[in-house]
Amino acid sequence: MSSRLFTFAGGPTGDWNVIRVTSVTGEPLIPTAKLTVVSGSTAPAGAQWILRGITSNTRYTMAEEKAQLVARQTDIGRPAATCAALIPIRKSAAWWDLPQDARRKIFEESSLHIQIGLKYLPAIARRLHHCRDLSTPEPFDFLTWFDYAPEDAQAFEDLVGALRATEEWKFVDREVDLRLAR
Amino acid sequence: MSSRLFTFAGGPTGDWNVIRVTSVTGEPLIPTAKLTVVSGSTAPAGAQWILRGITSNTRYTMAEEKAQLVARQTDIGRPAATCAALIPIRKSAAWWDLPQDARRKIFEESSLHIQIGLKYLPAIARRLHHCRDLSTPEPFDFLTWFDYAPEDAQAFEDLVGALRATEEWKFVDREVDLRLAR
Repeated sequence: MSSRLFTFAGGPTGDWNVIRVTSVTGEPLIPTAKLTVVSGSTAPAGAQWILRGITSNTRYTMAEEKAQLVARQTDIGRPAATCAALIPIRKSAAWWDLPQDARRKIFEESSLHIQIGLKYLPAIARRLHHCRDLSTPEPFDFLTWFDYAPEDAQAFEDLVGALRATEEWKFVDREVDLRLAR
Repeated sequence: MSSRLFTFAGGPTGDWNVIRVTSVTGEPLIPTAKLTVVSGSTAPAGAQWILRGITSNTRYTMAEEKAQLVARQTDIGRPAATCAALIPIRKSAAWWDLPQDARRKIFEESSLHIQIGLKYLPAIARRLHHCRDLSTPEPFDFLTWFDYAPEDAQAFEDLVGALRATEEWKFVDREVDLRLAR
């Protein structure tokens, strides 16, 4: 398996307690008590659902933006980050059919996706997983995993609220929002 | 399996006769008598090597370029296209670490990748498969499959020669070139 592949499994056991599951758009995910996050493809026995995604190169980030991100972002897994969120989304066929410049324009020039994320760094750490080009068809296109300290919970609400209000999000045709604690 | 996944298998049997295998850069592939190309992930018994890739959305193509491509390109599999080529390439870590605007600049503003390809449409048909974000680690990042009629064989040589002379190709750290006939 690729070392960039991660598996997220909902079920009766796992490192993370599921605090809340919200079906934002489209078909829900079965609510489970726990979530397991592992490197690789092996899901725990008894998983009620399994999502997989792979970290990859950036698709829209320009040089100056990358420098800003690198200067401010932190890796997930800080000891104080006892809150987490898993937000799986799928984008419509209309999105994927757009040329690169049209997607970039919506993603950043109109929706300020990178600029919104930058506002919440380093408090909110993030790891993006791509699902669309895995070997097996996946129910979502992206799995974003966030972690943060309890005192940054309101900042996280502001971040997801700002993203959902963007033009980019009009292309999101399925979204589930899982909040977790350990 | 994803309906966008394709398997290329070199071995003693297959629809295509292997005419020539050239290791352009880096580690070679074992030369085989035949090549099988199938939709999905099932390789024929006895394959000596197996490569897999997935078709996906474009990464660098802008709206105007997309319109030109759509107006001129044809699907692979035309009855007259009895010549084919499979060109697996891998790009360096330095390439993948570049921001999107730097990769685009090298890909098209400097290397004219799309403009070079357009010159040979509709004679040379092409299907690009991505390997880098499959679930399993793959030996190449891209598999490009081309087909053309025998009278366009020189045009195909000109096309690959032009691409290999570009700045983009300085980032190619492994390349094999298989020529085929049926």
